[in-house]
Amino acid sequence: MDINRTEIASLGEFGLIDHLTRHNEIRNASTLLSIGDDGAVIDTFGKQMVVSTDMLVEGVHFDLMYMPLKHLGYKAVTVNLSDIYAMNAEPTQITISIAISNRFSVEALDELYEGINLACERYGVDLIGGDTTTSLKGLIISITAIGEIEENKYVTRSGAQVNDLICVSGNLGAAYMGLLLLEREKKIYLEHPGIQPDLEDQTYVLERFMKPEAKRKVITWLKENSILPTAMIDISDGLSSEVLHICKQSEVGCLLYEEKLPIHEQTRAMAEKFGIAASTAALNGGEDYELLFTVSPDAFSKLGTTDLVTVIGHVTKPEDGNYFITKGNNKIELKAQGWNPIKN
Amino acid sequence: MDINRTEIASLGEFGLIDHLTRHNEIRNASTLLSIGDDGAVIDTFGKQMVVSTDMLVEGVHFDLMYMPLKHLGYKAVTVNLSDIYAMNAEPTQITISIAISNRFSVEALDELYEGINLACERYGVDLIGGDTTTSLKGLIISITAIGEIEENKYVTRSGAQVNDLICVSGNLGAAYMGLLLLEREKKIYLEHPGIQPDLEDQTYVLERFMKPEAKRKVITWLKENSILPTAMIDISDGLSSEVLHICKQSEVGCLLYEEKLPIHEQTRAMAEKFGIAASTAALNGGEDYELLFTVSPDAFSKLGTTDLVTVIGHVTKPEDGNYFITKGNNKIELKAQGWNPIKN
Repeated sequence: MDINRTEIASLGEFGLIDHLTRHNEIRNASTLLSIGDDGAVIDTFGKQMVVSTDMLVEGVHFDLMYMPLKHLGYKAVTVNLSDIYAMNAEPTQITISIAISNRFSVEALDELYEGINLACERYGVDLIGGDTTTSLKGLIISITAIGEIEENKYVTRSGAQVNDLICVSGNLGAAYMGLLLLEREKKIYLEHPGIQPDLEDQTYVLERFMKPEAKRKVITWLKENSILPTAMIDISDGLSSEVLHICKQSEVGCLLYEEKLPIHEQTRAMAEKFGIAASTAALNGGEDYELLFTVSPDAFSKLGTTDLVTVIGHVTKPEDGNYFITKGNNKIELKAQGWNPIKN
Repeated sequence: MDINRTEIASLGEFGLIDHLTRHNEIRNASTLLSIGDDGAVIDTFGKQMVVSTDMLVEGVHFDLMYMPLKHLGYKAVTVNLSDIYAMNAEPTQITISIAISNRFSVEALDELYEGINLACERYGVDLIGGDTTTSLKGLIISITAIGEIEENKYVTRSGAQVNDLICVSGNLGAAYMGLLLLEREKKIYLEHPGIQPDLEDQTYVLERFMKPEAKRKVITWLKENSILPTAMIDISDGLSSEVLHICKQSEVGCLLYEEKLPIHEQTRAMAEKFGIAASTAALNGGEDYELLFTVSPDAFSKLGTTDLVTVIGHVTKPEDGNYFITKGNNKIELKAQGWNPIKN
């Protein structure tokens, strides 16, 4: 690696920005002015804009020991786009600021930007600005994502109504099992550096953690089927935590069913190996970036026509509280036990 | 201070966000949805949007030994708004992400947010989102500012024309002298902790460094006088560096005159004390956040009616290069020697 090490200082700030953005493409007609000025300019064509922002800190949100920089760049973008989709909007632009210690070479940043550019390309998003600076320790990435939405078609967390169906896209708990696996392999590696990990059977859960996708196809499907969710959120902290956000902000209760939770077979197998219940991974594991949303009960028949979405419960009156019915028919109160970096 | 220390962990992530944003006000009709969802929603009323982003790192961009947190919060906002004004736009919203080590208490963050809120209030800007997380070391602040502009009235760095006048708002070099003063006092304090600094005569340069204002009134004046600059940039890195950005991006040359540089008398006095030329502070000192812009020569008579703006030179052909005429009538090539955190 060090054979091709270019020191960042050798390029300087502006040289570095020029270098990192040399392949920058504009994909949206709304991007009137991109990187290279005091600000970027966006045309809105009469639409409303959605803005979301996120900060990722090395050692808190990611571990470069098992997270390749290309994957990190890709993931940093997709998790932000996920927030835009969770508003029912279409992401169009992002800005990226990074702070780096001198441990990083230009080649390392190139890898990071390869992932960033790949995600932008795949989701049709323009990288329109950012900032590149020095950190005292580690890598910090701050992303702001911007999206567009037809007038007043955005979906908040606060519109869920009693009797609405609670739906989730894809499947849950996979990213968490991927993380547990990586943490275990890291521990083994640190104790026995000679042992090569064999992760071949676990590619699905690993990819769900390392290279999560934003759920554009779910938003597209909802639009095509004229379904406007009453509330929506993306699952970054675990199902429990997110459903409680919707319930609190919508002033409703909820009832979820363990037997309805969509869980991938590899997630189940891994959970068994680790001796934890797969539904615990689904409820409390984070970073799946699936969409959780509520819809009016009359959307039920349409929901039966797709395998993108599963109905996992329904909205109840606020006084009925927030509950989870186990396969053994026990009623357990839902508590948020998601990830919480601030508590570290 | 430690008498009233509340640990951040005692609030948790969501509790902390609720606490910090409890006084959050909405000032713009365009802010349809603010903090508390996956994203904020902005109505654009047919205008175009300007977006700018910046990252500030403790130990690189600021030193908490002499920068009170309230001032830091204020400055973090105003320097971002400065970028929006430098596009000729009106700032309307900001998002703020911070990463903090456990060295910081809730009370410390309250001070930071006091400054942030004060700046938002003074500039009529809404704080619509952000992220709060843990850092491994120090404080990191990332701000994205959003502004609005009438269709195609934004001003880039690339429109300067040969013979245009080069103008600057306010005066230059003051913030740099404020910084030098603070650095000197810090050194004295570290060597002799008993000595109290006497900074009373230097309030102007100190305030220019510690609590810079964005130059809204200049943008307002330009609008009132129907002057649309051909190119504009804000001075964060020093006049030399910024004028060279305009020249490079506009593919022109420039001629600046030392005798025209607006320099405050306190800046001159301090520069003399420190044994440096005041014009060096003006050319290479950063963080004044004045606006540097070019206008068509026919705006000259209007420019004479205000003391907000000084004409400091004019645009030349690209082959004429970028020069500075000293008071002694020497012609010196302009070189960017501004601050460059990436080189640290």
